Parts: sequence; C-alpha cells; structure tokens
Amino acid sequence: MSEHSAQDAAIKAHRMGIDTYQEPVVFMRADCHVCRSEGFQVQARVKVSAGQRSLIATLNVVIDDLLAIDQAGLSEIAWRGLAVEEGTELAFAHPEPLRSFSNVRRKIYGAELEATEYLDIVRDIVAGRYSPIELAAFLTTCAGARMSLQEAVSLTRAMVDTGSTLKWPADVVVDKHCIGGLPGNRTTPIVVAIVAAAGLTMPKTSSRAITSPAGTADVMETLTPVALDLAAMRRVVEREGGCIVWGGAMDLSPADDILIRVERPLDFDSDGQLVASVLSKKIAAGSTHVVIDVPVGATAKVRTPEAARGLINKLIVAGSAMGLDVRAVQTQGTEPVGVGIGPALEAKDVVAVLNGDKAAPRDLRDRALRLAAETLSLGRNAYGTGLAEAARILDSGEAWRKFQAICEAQGGHRTPPVAPFTRDFIAPAEGRIAAIDNRKLARVAKLAGAPVSLAAGLEIRARTGEVVAKGQPLFTLHAQTPGEMAYAAEYAEGQGAPFQLEPL
Amino acid sequence: MSEHSAQDAAIKAHRMGIDTYQEPVVFMRADCHVCRSEGFQVQARVKVSAGQRSLIATLNVVIDDLLAIDQAGLSEIAWRGLAVEEGTELAFAHPEPLRSFSNVRRKIYGAELEATEYLDIVRDIVAGRYSPIELAAFLTTCAGARMSLQEAVSLTRAMVDTGSTLKWPADVVVDKHCIGGLPGNRTTPIVVAIVAAAGLTMPKTSSRAITSPAGTADVMETLTPVALDLAAMRRVVEREGGCIVWGGAMDLSPADDILIRVERPLDFDSDGQLVASVLSKKIAAGSTHVVIDVPVGATAKVRTPEAARGLINKLIVAGSAMGLDVRAVQTQGTEPVGVGIGPALEAKDVVAVLNGDKAAPRDLRDRALRLAAETLSLGRNAYGTGLAEAARILDSGEAWRKFQAICEAQGGHRTPPVAPFTRDFIAPAEGRIAAIDNRKLARVAKLAGAPVSLAAGLEIRARTGEVVAKGQPLFTLHAQTPGEMAYAAEYAEGQGAPFQLEPL
Repeated sequence: MSEHSAQDAAIKAHRMGIDTYQEPVVFMRADCHVCRSEGFQVQARVKVSAGQRSLIATLNVVIDDLLAIDQAGLSEIAWRGLAVEEGTELAFAHPEPLRSFSNVRRKIYGAELEATEYLDIVRDIVAGRYSPIELAAFLTTCAGARMSLQEAVSLTRAMVDTGSTLKWPADVVVDKHCIGGLPGNRTTPIVVAIVAAAGLTMPKTSSRAITSPAGTADVMETLTPVALDLAAMRRVVEREGGCIVWGGAMDLSPADDILIRVERPLDFDSDGQLVASVLSKKIAAGSTHVVIDVPVGATAKVRTPEAARGLINKLIVAGSAMGLDVRAVQTQGTEPVGVGIGPALEAKDVVAVLNGDKAAPRDLRDRALRLAAETLSLGRNAYGTGLAEAARILDSGEAWRKFQAICEAQGGHRTPPVAPFTRDFIAPAEGRIAAIDNRKLARVAKLAGAPVSLAAGLEIRARTGEVVAKGQPLFTLHAQTPGEMAYAAEYAEGQGAPFQLEPL
Repeated sequence: MSEHSAQDAAIKAHRMGIDTYQEPVVFMRADCHVCRSEGFQVQARVKVSAGQRSLIATLNVVIDDLLAIDQAGLSEIAWRGLAVEEGTELAFAHPEPLRSFSNVRRKIYGAELEATEYLDIVRDIVAGRYSPIELAAFLTTCAGARMSLQEAVSLTRAMVDTGSTLKWPADVVVDKHCIGGLPGNRTTPIVVAIVAAAGLTMPKTSSRAITSPAGTADVMETLTPVALDLAAMRRVVEREGGCIVWGGAMDLSPADDILIRVERPLDFDSDGQLVASVLSKKIAAGSTHVVIDVPVGATAKVRTPEAARGLINKLIVAGSAMGLDVRAVQTQGTEPVGVGIGPALEAKDVVAVLNGDKAAPRDLRDRALRLAAETLSLGRNAYGTGLAEAARILDSGEAWRKFQAICEAQGGHRTPPVAPFTRDFIAPAEGRIAAIDNRKLARVAKLAGAPVSLAAGLEIRARTGEVVAKGQPLFTLHAQTPGEMAYAAEYAEGQGAPFQLEPL
C-alpha cells in the first residue's frame, strides 16, 4: 500500500489523553495534509503506522485548536498499540478492503461457511480490522440456531489457530466449565482445590463476566492475584498441580476476548459462538478432559432440557472432532446458588464451603462435590468412584489447605472487600416465595455495579417455597456508590423485582 | 430519574471541538464527582441533560489535563443536540435500561415480533437510545429472509408513526422508487420532469447513497440545492407540480435515517428492512401511488427473477395493507445504465437525456420513459396510454423546461463539478467484453471517493458484447485527490477489475 501512503506528510504522534477503551481512535484536523490528500472523512477507518507497528483506528476530526496541523492525537489504546513517544512520526493509509466481511454477508443471507472462510474472518478480527458494528453483525448472524455443528468446529479451530496454545507435561490435563446464567454458581475454585489435592493436573484459566454479575476470575481476584503471565502460571501449576488464573493475559483464543467485548453490551450469547468460545479456550489451554456444567431452568442461560441436550451434543461432538474428551452434566438451574451474587460476595461463599463453615451454603457444596467427582472420574477414566473421594478431600480440610496454597503461590491470599452501602429489600406482605427470577437478580446485581465494582452485588435472604412474614428481608443490596445503589434499587422496586410472592 | 442524578455536581459544558459524526460522545475525568458517585466507566452509556433537553452519549474518559474536574466535554453532535453554551450546567444519570432490546434478542432467537414490539424498538431508536452495535444487531437479525411480511408491515408502520408525515391537496400523489444496485440508473429526475410536465403531482423526496456510489439526492445536489425544508419544498411543488429534494431534512421516517448510518458501513440491505425503508418514506411523504423499479441481474441488488418476485410481492401486499397503491416493474439489471457513475457524472447523463443531446445514453432514456409511462398510467388509472405521452413530453423539450423550472424553484440551476484527476483503464489485450461486474464497478467508484466527493466516480467506455482492441479504454476513473485515485486504481487493477474480457 506504500504507493498511496501520504509520504510527504510528517505527521507527529500526540498522546491525546482520552481513553476510548478497546477501540483505537485517531484525532486529526480536517485541514491537515493527510486528511486532504487521502480524502479521509469523519468516522473513516484509517490505517496508522509507526515503524513496523500498525493498527486500524476510527478517525475523529478535531475542528478547533486541540491539535497542531501536523499532529495526530491517539487515544490510549492506540498510543499503547503503536508504542510511540510524543512526536514520533506516523504514516497513514486507507486500510485494505475488508474482504472477509463478504463471508459474513453470505452467512447473513443464509450460506453455510467453510473452515477457510471462518479462518479469514477470525484472522481479520484478531488483527483488529473489524469495527464494533461489523463484530456485532458477525455475532448476530451466528446467534440463535444459525450455525451448523461443522461451522462451530471451523470457528473453534480458527480461534485456536489465531492465538497461543499451552502445553503441559502431564498426559491428562483436566478442566471444567460452567455455561453461565446461574447467579452465584461459583463451584470452580472448590473443584480445582479438590481435584489438585487429589493429584490431578488442573491449570484453570477463567474468564471475567460476559453478561453475568461475576466471572470466576472476578471472584478469585478478591482472594488472590489472577492476572498472572504464562511463566508465573507454570510455576504455580508445577508447585500445586492447579491454579485459578485469569485467562485473558495468556493470548488463548484472542478472538474470543474481542468478540466478548461486543457480546457483553449486547447481552446475548449464541449456541455456535458459545461452543467455539468454550472449546477454543480449553483446547488452547492444553486441556485433554473437560467437564461442563449446564444449569437448566426457565431463567438460566439454558432454559429447557431439550435446549441443554442440543447444546451438550454440540459440545461433545465438536470437542471429539478436535480431540477433546468432553463430559457435560445437566444441573438444576431454577434457583440461584449460594447466598452471594457479585465478586466479593461469591468469594465469601466459596471460602465458607472450603473451610467447613457450618453456615456454608449447602447447595454450593453439593454442586461442587458433584462436579469434582465427575472431573476425577473423567480424568482417571474410572467411573463412579469420584464422589466419596471428593467429599473426603473437602471434609478433611485438604481442599482448603490446597486452595490457600494455590492462592499463596499466585501471589498471596487476601480478604474480599466489603461494600460501604447496603440496603435490605423486604417482603411487602406475608406470603410464600413462588419463584426467583435469575435474570432479574443478575440484572439488579449488575446495576449495583458488579462485576466492575468488586464489592457490589446482593445477598439472597430467602428461598423458593419459603414462607416469609411481612417486613422480612428477601435480599440485601450491596453497592460502592450511592448512584449505583439508587439505580439498582429503582429497577428492583419496579419491574425488576426478582422475588415473586404468592398469598398463603 | 431525578433521585439518582448527581444533583450536587455542578458540571459545566465544554465544547470539545471533536467531531464524532452521529454518535454523541461525552468526555469526562475519571476522578470527577459524577463519574465517582454514579460509578460511570469508560464506554458507559450516559444520559446527559441541560434543562429540558437530554440525550444518551458514550463516555470517553479523559486521563490528563484536557478538562477541569468540573467540566464535561461534548462532541459536536452532543453540543448541538443539547443546544448549550460554554459553561452551561449539565446533569448526568444512568439511562433507563433499554427494555425494547429484549425484543431484538427474542427475534435473534427466532421469535416473530408483534407490532407493539417493533414500535417500542423504533421509538427507542429514534430517541437515540440504541448504540451503534445494538443497531447493527437489530439490522442483522432483520436481514436475509428472517422477517415475515406482517413484521415488515409492523416495522413500516412504526417508522411512519415515529416521524413527520406530509399532506398534499391533490387526491393523487405519485412517486417512484428504484431498488438500488444498478450503477448509473438515474431515471428519477427525468421521470419527475415528465410526470410534472404532464400535470400530475410528484413531490419527490430522495435519499443519499446507502451502499451505492450515488443516490438521487447526491446527483441532484450537483445541479441544484436539495436540502430544502418543508415550507420551501411546498412552494416548489405548488409552483411546478414536482420537486426532487433530499428527504433527510423532512423528518420522514427518521428511524430509517438512523438505521442507514449503520447499514452503510455494513454494506448490506435486508428484504424486510428494505420494504420498511421504501414504504415508510413513501407513506410519510404523503404518496398514494408508487412505481417501483426493480433491476434484476447477477450483480445487481436483486439477483434473480425469483428474488425479485418475492420482493415485489412483499412491496405490493405490505403497501396495500397500508393503503398505498404499488406497481413494481422488473427491469434489466445486468448492465450499468448510462455512461457516468458517481454524482456529477450521472448528472451529466441526466441532463443529456433531458435536453435531447444526440449523444445521450439511449438506455437511460428508454428506462426513464418506461417508468414515466408506468407512473402516468398508475396515477391516472388508465393503463397502456403512458408511453406515447411520455415520449412526446420528453422529445418536445417540455420535460427539459420543467426540469430547469424545478431547479430554479429549488434555488437555482447549476453546473456539476469536474474532477481534477482522471485516469483511463485500457484493455490489456484484444477481446470481447464477456461481462461487467456492477458490484466491482460500484466499489471502484466508491473507493475513488463517490458519493462524498461529488465529482468522483467513473465513466464507462465500452459495453458487454463489444469487441475492443488492445489499449482501447474500458473506463475512465475520476477522483478529487491522488490518495483516492491510487486507492481505487489499486483495487481496479487487482481483484476488483470490473470488465471481464474473453479472447476472440
């Protein structure tokens, strides 16, 4: 493209001091040499280069004296991506036409795409060449039931192939995953502690929340550092047999991380995308055996046993096509699990189960034991033996000691933060709790600030079927700011009320 | 929402001087009172108010000393939308949750939506409450064959009901529309001139290009002002019986304009969205009878006669459900029409046909006559009589005089601009032209700068079936900047070559 770069324009980088999150933005004057000669317009996608580094940015035109005529301002992500200093010379060009997007168009019009077409799309996504609206179109056209199993496999392979992969010395490397949608279902830290204590290798990389009030990485971050690099992670796993770290720093399936940024505000997942997201991370992380927890319930992510069977089938078949041994377990998904919802509040439940606290939530303990048992038996190819062993390891305190050792190895065991603002929501009248809406519960916790505000969320004070007196607390909201508290409270008091009461 | 606005924060408006096109952006310091008390994060959607005016903006966090701690910077569109002055006090709040997007999610998962659900969606879109990625998801899920006819009607009604509507004294108000995709097919100005000269009322509002190198409004803008307000448009129609103005200033189906902004970079249309877009504009413009030109060809927007029949059926049935008399005509869509592609170059062809230039493109003339004939006979409910009358009005110079009178009434007849850079593309060898790819032709014209650069585009110098000698020009590229010329040329010389030559 060099022949139509504006070579005679000595435009210099300026750190604009504006944080545009993950979308690189370049700020230029409309009357600058480059905008005039290249014909760049507001909101154009522009290729910016500094030496060997380049990226695609969105152009914002500056119309007053914020910049000199020979300056281009860079947003924070662009500044870091180009690794420039104040005054570094920049080159500009039109980006190459985004040819892979014609595959997305064909998919929108109903075509089934080939593996090479997914690879083209994913390569361009990882290279930062898709704009947010192009990513949104791709995600939407893969949503619902619009992606065949073969397509999900192709997308998974493309996502693995465009990132790093981990290798471990053990022949058997186990992993677990939960298809989200069930608030408070924080079994992973407990399962890793049990399974590692039993001697299996379980190098767990977890994600932050996509559409939920907390991901496992968010919860663990309140207990120990999770943003480890690969070398640090290896040291932890060598020493303790397991870890629970944030996978985002590992460059495992980087396409997944980019897609999640757009998926999160859209607040929908898609079956094919879900299969690709889950399996690509597991394969890239070097796992050989994976247990997948699929909670099923009217307000969980998977709503019916039929939908669960469809998804489980896709996960098993797609996994098998890629050499991954998958076992998926349908679990109860009608009720939130544990007491807390939100990073710090869920961490409290996890610790209570691990250290044998008598008041620990029984449901969380039971679910964690079941999944630990499945993981042990899958990893050892010895069915039906896991449950007794898992319970023994948990009850003897071995799991709690292993968990503390893992936290120490990751950088130190710490105490979760506590929110400065709390507010009880009480039953307006006597009645029986007919149902709890998981989606509304999650929404309330998110409006209160979770997962970004680690201490925010809520504690559940009553259960489905329970009879409550007028004025008895149903849940307690936790927030870090009065604004977030008010916002969540307004929703929870209006159409977002998560508890459905029926008269006695 | 007043109870959780940050009432004690006296944050003052500052004109940031940054043009973010149609997406309002607010710039604030992360440590300012509002960000802290409301818990706003980078890229949050924020409700900004100044007195009675408010809008939803995306938050960019400023991390250095661009702003004082009590200032909020506004991008140009936000500054204009709030109609503030430097230092005007602003209020901030979390926007109400976007409830209508749950309808979009249901549609993505396969549900058919009700009229009220489309109305909820469209109201929120018109209120500026959908982010670009949410708009992209909505457009994508309506694309392909995923929208039922009833849904298209519901969407159309919602788009009409959320904008202004025009009323005309005449009982019969005719209109025409072309389903795009055929470069150079600029019949509208000729049809309006003929039909208005024949005494019918044809208050034509046209759009700018969506995915093509020129829309009728772009072409007309090179000949006369088109951005008239409603009062000015009424005066033109009263005096001349017709007009050809840009519809964007009329607030007719404003949702359509918002959707088009996202549709344009995505470069795809959808059937249901197309029906809603076309019919909502016509109904809102007060039309009673509409002729729709549907060019059909392998590289036109509608590719097969079957697809055309499907679309035409939808247009007629949906139109009829809303009291609009629609006649749709399949036309040849394999070849570009006329010589020029791009605003000024197409205007040149239009003028040549109207003023009886012997060198005027015959195909453009024939198509315009056919559509004028259909419009006359539909508007008069007198079939089979239109063609002779249309030809007489054109050949006698009446149409040309009417066109000039309309241009004068709109603010003056002017001469289209001429591009400073041109470049011939020649046949690399002797041969016969086997095919011309409309999509590649359009793409080349767009890369050259059309439609934003009014003089940019290309002139076709050879036709399908024609035998050309080595070195004979196939087309001439026109550009306003060397950068755009180089960019278009690179594509046209590579995989974007629009002419397919076969050996003799």
